[in-house]
Amino acid sequence: KYGDSIVDVSERLAQNLRKSSRVLVLFGSPREGLRDILSRESLELSRVTDYVVNTIPHQGTETVRTEEALYATLAILNLLAP
Amino acid sequence: KYGDSIVDVSERLAQNLRKSSRVLVLFGSPREGLRDILSRESLELSRVTDYVVNTIPHQGTETVRTEEALYATLAILNLLAP
Repeated sequence: KYGDSIVDVSERLAQNLRKSSRVLVLFGSPREGLRDILSRESLELSRVTDYVVNTIPHQGTETVRTEEALYATLAILNLLAP
Repeated sequence: KYGDSIVDVSERLAQNLRKSSRVLVLFGSPREGLRDILSRESLELSRVTDYVVNTIPHQGTETVRTEEALYATLAILNLLAP
């Protein structure tokens, strides 16, 4: 939900993905968002990542289940950098 | 798994989706693929659809669960025509 809409960053993200040999994707947990998890480690989301992306824009719900976010995100990454 | 790879048709599909006021997406069932379901009704997949798309190219498994295909497909449609 937070971060840039995938619609806005998809082209730039696709280019970077194709240039990358390894990709690390972070998800929040069912109980806690990424920001909260990182803040316990005194880390800031924007400083430890290249992209913070909302892969389900216009989602219409308060939160998305982690397992749904996982399928949605992997499907989009697979499309952008097959 | 069957059909055109989403990577190949995504641009054309995105254009058509944006022009459409309604979209119908068909999925196979856990027990039976779309082709089999339609053949019982004497219908042919290519004749009743505009696109037959594999939304999970390079999937590496024999089949994908319907619920996984659903999340993957909706995520991609949401990206292509937000």
